Amino acid sequence: MEIKEARQYVIDRLNYAFKPKSVAVIGASRNEKKVGFKVIQGLRRCGYEGIIYPINVKATEVAGLPAYKSILDVPDDVDLAFVSLPATGVFEALEQCVEKKVKIAVVSSSGFGEIGNKNLQNEITEYCRENGLPLIGPNLVGIGTPYHNYNCGFVPYLPNKGPVALISQSGSNLLAALGSSQLDHFGISMFVGLGNKADVDFSEVIKYAEQEEHTKCIAVYIEALDSPEAFKKACLECEKPITVIKVGSSKIGVKAAFAHTASDNTGHNNAEYDQLFQESGVMREETWQEFLDTSLALGMCPPLRGDNVVMITNGGGAGLLACDHFERLGMPLKELKEISQNLRSAIRKYMPSFGSPLNPVDISGTATSEMYGGALRTAYRDENVDGIVISVCPTAVTDVEAITDTVIEIHKQYKTLGKPFIMECQGGNECREAIMKLRDHGIPAFSTMEQAVNAMVALREYSHIMSRKEELLKQAHAEEEEK
Amino acid sequence: MEIKEARQYVIDRLNYAFKPKSVAVIGASRNEKKVGFKVIQGLRRCGYEGIIYPINVKATEVAGLPAYKSILDVPDDVDLAFVSLPATGVFEALEQCVEKKVKIAVVSSSGFGEIGNKNLQNEITEYCRENGLPLIGPNLVGIGTPYHNYNCGFVPYLPNKGPVALISQSGSNLLAALGSSQLDHFGISMFVGLGNKADVDFSEVIKYAEQEEHTKCIAVYIEALDSPEAFKKACLECEKPITVIKVGSSKIGVKAAFAHTASDNTGHNNAEYDQLFQESGVMREETWQEFLDTSLALGMCPPLRGDNVVMITNGGGAGLLACDHFERLGMPLKELKEISQNLRSAIRKYMPSFGSPLNPVDISGTATSEMYGGALRTAYRDENVDGIVISVCPTAVTDVEAITDTVIEIHKQYKTLGKPFIMECQGGNECREAIMKLRDHGIPAFSTMEQAVNAMVALREYSHIMSRKEELLKQAHAEEEEK
Repeated sequence: MEIKEARQYVIDRLNYAFKPKSVAVIGASRNEKKVGFKVIQGLRRCGYEGIIYPINVKATEVAGLPAYKSILDVPDDVDLAFVSLPATGVFEALEQCVEKKVKIAVVSSSGFGEIGNKNLQNEITEYCRENGLPLIGPNLVGIGTPYHNYNCGFVPYLPNKGPVALISQSGSNLLAALGSSQLDHFGISMFVGLGNKADVDFSEVIKYAEQEEHTKCIAVYIEALDSPEAFKKACLECEKPITVIKVGSSKIGVKAAFAHTASDNTGHNNAEYDQLFQESGVMREETWQEFLDTSLALGMCPPLRGDNVVMITNGGGAGLLACDHFERLGMPLKELKEISQNLRSAIRKYMPSFGSPLNPVDISGTATSEMYGGALRTAYRDENVDGIVISVCPTAVTDVEAITDTVIEIHKQYKTLGKPFIMECQGGNECREAIMKLRDHGIPAFSTMEQAVNAMVALREYSHIMSRKEELLKQAHAEEEEK
Repeated sequence: MEIKEARQYVIDRLNYAFKPKSVAVIGASRNEKKVGFKVIQGLRRCGYEGIIYPINVKATEVAGLPAYKSILDVPDDVDLAFVSLPATGVFEALEQCVEKKVKIAVVSSSGFGEIGNKNLQNEITEYCRENGLPLIGPNLVGIGTPYHNYNCGFVPYLPNKGPVALISQSGSNLLAALGSSQLDHFGISMFVGLGNKADVDFSEVIKYAEQEEHTKCIAVYIEALDSPEAFKKACLECEKPITVIKVGSSKIGVKAAFAHTASDNTGHNNAEYDQLFQESGVMREETWQEFLDTSLALGMCPPLRGDNVVMITNGGGAGLLACDHFERLGMPLKELKEISQNLRSAIRKYMPSFGSPLNPVDISGTATSEMYGGALRTAYRDENVDGIVISVCPTAVTDVEAITDTVIEIHKQYKTLGKPFIMECQGGNECREAIMKLRDHGIPAFSTMEQAVNAMVALREYSHIMSRKEELLKQAHAEEEEK
C-alpha cells in the first residue's frame, strides 16, 4: 500500500527483522511439509543463535522446542513474529502481536491481494500502520542474512557471505539466486522476499540496506512499485549503488504479475519505469543474469572513473569477443598507445615475441602466472589506466590455479588504488574453482567474456550516475517544493 | 586462401582428420611442455585406438612409443600427419607428407599469416593444393571427437558426447567450450580449431559435418571468411541447422583479428556479414553464451513450427521473466484460451486452487512431480501447442530430482510428436545436477529463464529459415548463372 516516503520507524524496526534476538512462529507445525515446521527447521539448521518460540494452539512441543498456545503466553519479549496461518487467521494473530509489543511481523501466508482479496490485505495493512507494527509480506518466502546464520522462512539455502543485499518481490527468483549463491559463490549480505509488500515498502528496505554494514550494493527485483516517489527519494539519497530488474511490463506479464504478487501495472508502461529509474539514479538491467552479474561487480568494485580499460588475455578469441562487446555497449577499447605513452613497451616485457600488445593485450596461449602478474601490475601502476579485465583460457600449458593465486595477491596489494579489476575464465572444473576463489577474494569473476564486459561497463555507468546524482537530488527537491 | 566452392576431395579427406586409423606426429617431443609431446599424451590419455607414429630426428623413443627419423621411415600408411615444427620447417615436412601419400595434414605451428608471414603461408597452401593434400591450420589448437575417444592437439579436455559440431577459428574459445562441455554436459559431436584456415575452409568442414552421423547442429565461430560464396553455398545446401558467431567487426577488433588468426576484415562491415548470414540461411548469435545455448537447443530439438508456446512453472517470478523476454524478442506468449479451447481447464487439474492457469501456467510453489507431469502431458497432447518451456524453482517442498525424472520419462514418450521442450532450473547443486541429467537425455536445460526463452525463439527462427531456404537456394542459383 502506498506511502509518501520511507517511514523512519519502519527502517528502525527492520533491524529486528534481520537481526532478531527472538522469533515466534505463529502457526508452528509438527507436520514436516508445512511452512510452520520448515521455518523452525531452517532457523535451527542454519545455526540461528536467538530464541525460537513455536506458537501452536494444540501442541505442547514442536520440533523439540516447547510450544505456546498463544504469543501472549511467551514469557519474554518477542522481536519478530513469523506468521504462517491461513489468511483468515492473520488479523487476529497481528492483534496479539500488537498486544505483545512484538517489534516486527513477517507474514508468509498467501490468499490476499494476489487472489483478489485486496480488502483483507488492506485491512491488515491499515491495522498494522495504526498500531506501529511493521509488516513484511504477506505471500513471502523468507528473510535472512548469512552473517548471523539467520534463515527465516522456507528457503532451503543460506547464501554465501558477500556484498549484495537482495530485495526481491518474487520468492522463486529469490530462491534461485540464493541457490546460485551457494553454487557459484555469489556473495550476499542480506535477503528478503517482499511478496505482496502490503506494508513494508521497497524504499524502507533500501534505506535499511544502505546502513547495513556488509552491504555494498543493493539489488532489487520489482514486479510493481506502489510508491514510486518514496522509491525515488530513497534511491537518490542512497550512497550505495542500486540495481533493479523490473518485470511485468509485457502484455501478458501485466496479468501474470497481478496473479503472482497482486502487482498492479495497469496503465504503467515500460518507458515510464525507465524514466523513473533514470531519475532515481538506479541501474536497470534487462535479464536476470545481467542483474546478478552487475550487482556482484558493483558490490565488489569501485566505480570505473574513466574509459581507459586494459584487457589482458592468453586467448585471442576471448579478446575479440571482448572488444566487439565493449564497442557494442558504446565503450570501445582504446589501443595502449592512446591510453598511455609507455604502456605498450612496459607490458611487452611480459609476453613472448608472438604475443600482441594491442588492446586486448594477447600475452599468448603460453602465458605463465608470472606473465599475467607482470602485465597486471603494469596496468595497475599506470596512472592513465582506469580499469582492468583479465581473461584466462585453459590451454594445455595454462596453470589456472597459479594465475588465480597470483592475481588475488596483486589485487590485494593494489586495490587501494580504486581501479576496478574483473576476471573471466571459461573451461573445465579448474576454471569453475578459479571463479569461486576469485569471488571469495572480492574479485568479480565470470565464465563468459560478455558477462565481464557488461560488468565493467556497468561500473562506468555507475560512475556517471554518481556525477549526476547531485543534480538529480536538486531536481527532485525542486519538484517536491512545486507540489 | 580463397576457394570458389567446397572441394569434394577435401570433404572426403576430412574423414581421415576426424577418424584417422593412424597419426604421425612430426615434431614429436620428449619435453612434456611442448605441443609435440602434448599431442601424443592427449591422444593416449583420451583412449585413441589407432596407431601413433612419433617423428623425431634425434630420439628413438617418445612417450614410450618407437620414434622415426622421418615420416618416410614409417613402415605403414599414415592417415593424418600432425605437424608441430617451427614455421620454417613446415614446408619440408609437407613435401614428405605428399611423398608418403598422407591423407591429410594438420598444422599447429604458428608464425605464419598472423605475424605477417603471409607469403610463407600462401606457399604452403599452394603446394598442398597442387598436390591434393588438404591442410588444416596452421596456428591450430586441435581436432577431435568424443565418439572415437579422439583428441588430437593440445586440448586438455575431451568433451561430452552430444549433437553439436563445433568449428572454431579461435583456439581459446574452442578450449573454453570444450571445458564447458565437460563441466556442464554440453554435448559435442566433433570439434576443430581452424586457426589461419590457409587451405581447408569453413565450407568444407560444414559439408563434412552435414554428413557426420552424430552432428545435429553445426556451430561456427568466425573471425573472417576468405570465401564467402563457398560458405553461403555450403550453408544453403546444408540440411542441418547452422549457428554462427562472427567477431572482429569492431574498430579495434579488426586489428585484433588480424593479429590473432591473420583474419582480414578490412573494408567488410558488420552489416555486410549480417546480410551474408541471412542469405546463407544461418543463425547469427551475438554473445558467446547465446551461441552455445542456441546451438545446443537446435542440436536437441526439432524446429518450433508455430508460435503457441506453453510455459509451465512453480515460480511466478520465473514466469514473469519469461513472458517479458518472449515479448521482448517479438514472440509474446498467448493465453491458454487463445491457444486451445480446453487447454485451460485440462491443465487446471494439475495445480492447487491458488495456482494460475494463465500462460505462464503457475502450478504454484507446492507443485509435485505428478503436477508437473500432468501439466506437461496435457500440453504435449494438445495439438494446438507447438512448444513447451518448463521452469523449476527449488522451493523448500520442491523435489527437483523427481520432477527431472518425470519430465525425462514423458519426453521419451512424446518426443516423436516433434514439439520442442526446453527446461530452466536455477538454484543450488540439485538444480545443477538436474540440468546435466536433462542434457544427457537430450533436453536442452539452462540455469536462467532468458536462456531458455532465447533457445525457444531460436527454434522458431530456424523453422522460418527452413521455409525460406528453398527460395534462398533458387536466388543463389540465379545469381550464379548471372555471373
